[in-house]
Amino acid sequence: MQIPVRIVLVQTSHPGNIGAAARAMKTMGLSDLALVAPRTFPSDEAVARASGADDVLRNASIYGNLGDAIADCAYVVGASARLRSVPCPVTDPRTCAALVWQRLEHGRAAIVMGPEQSGLTNEDLALCQHLVHIPTTKEYGSLNVAMALQVLCYELRMSGLGRRTQVEEKREAPLATAAELEGFHDHLERVLEDAGFFDPNHPKRLKLKLRRLFHRAELDQNEINILRGALSALDSKRANHD
Amino acid sequence: MQIPVRIVLVQTSHPGNIGAAARAMKTMGLSDLALVAPRTFPSDEAVARASGADDVLRNASIYGNLGDAIADCAYVVGASARLRSVPCPVTDPRTCAALVWQRLEHGRAAIVMGPEQSGLTNEDLALCQHLVHIPTTKEYGSLNVAMALQVLCYELRMSGLGRRTQVEEKREAPLATAAELEGFHDHLERVLEDAGFFDPNHPKRLKLKLRRLFHRAELDQNEINILRGALSALDSKRANHD
Repeated sequence: MQIPVRIVLVQTSHPGNIGAAARAMKTMGLSDLALVAPRTFPSDEAVARASGADDVLRNASIYGNLGDAIADCAYVVGASARLRSVPCPVTDPRTCAALVWQRLEHGRAAIVMGPEQSGLTNEDLALCQHLVHIPTTKEYGSLNVAMALQVLCYELRMSGLGRRTQVEEKREAPLATAAELEGFHDHLERVLEDAGFFDPNHPKRLKLKLRRLFHRAELDQNEINILRGALSALDSKRANHD
Repeated sequence: MQIPVRIVLVQTSHPGNIGAAARAMKTMGLSDLALVAPRTFPSDEAVARASGADDVLRNASIYGNLGDAIADCAYVVGASARLRSVPCPVTDPRTCAALVWQRLEHGRAAIVMGPEQSGLTNEDLALCQHLVHIPTTKEYGSLNVAMALQVLCYELRMSGLGRRTQVEEKREAPLATAAELEGFHDHLERVLEDAGFFDPNHPKRLKLKLRRLFHRAELDQNEINILRGALSALDSKRANHD
């Protein structure tokens, strides 16, 4: 899935950050990078930090000001570390991603990252429809520009993929049926009874606990076979001695 | 909001990545950093990249192996760039964050990041209850370790900020720690080896499957005691005959 959102880096000081930004974009399926008055570009350091995402750097467009970089965009979001006094709607990255995807139906969208030290000027913020703020702790909000971009691009991709909510585990076999589970528990209880494990007066409590534990494991048929194989090995070993 | 989750970096090659990881953690309210056999530490480059999060570096603990670094943890998640053949539950970062918050009620939790080039070994993965995979594009999955950590810590924070209480199974005992789980698996493997259960030429695959199955059960300390009691009963019964 390619995500047609332009990332605009304004007056980035450190070329390493430009490279890391390209890498962050490419991992999440973005490739449209625009640089506004970068201090050093092109740069070997940027290529080194891009680590295989140098195609994003090669195809980057360079502009003299933010207005030109977003001229063809219908929706522009500014990233802001500080919550400014300028009245402007602020979203978190997740909401931002959902809004961007909605707007993409209508035209191009851009996310704008300011200079490392100072962030976007009020003039540049005025060109943004929304601000996006990554909820750092109050005590330490020093988020590197490429790190911030990684989070924003990740949320764009998560939003694009549609959120998964379940733990997915690839199983090699179908889940065991209730009958197969009963067969296993009968087997387990018999072997443990023979070994004198249960208190003859109160066997039920431990049996129940064992059942609950294996229920939680949601055994598949393969696992039932492994466990019954183990029980048979333990049983036949003992049978040989009896 | 401080998030009491340990971040474990295994055999990190580049000290800059350790510094960037500390910075990523601190922005999101994490401070418990454990380093397993780092190539270069302490290091000026790490301090430079930490950019004010050098307190996290100063307080980092250093270990010789992953088992020691997570010995007191009840829930261990491994970060994996590749989706392995070993059957193991894989979550995305958002689900992972929700699961970690649930487990924090029962004990310590850790997220483990492997070496830059190779990722976690199968041996280290076997110590993890879950894997977390950041959904990069198929074409380019080259996510820097600190960038990946930034995303995971961001999701932990988002989950912490917006968390609603979940209905969960009421446990009678705290979840088992990694060290207690290892003790159980050692015991289980020894008893099954004595019973001739494992193929002497290929013992690992079945051992891994047993680990996976019991990881999924999320054993508590009470259940560990029951299972070890069962193993001892089976073992002493046999010992009487031998």
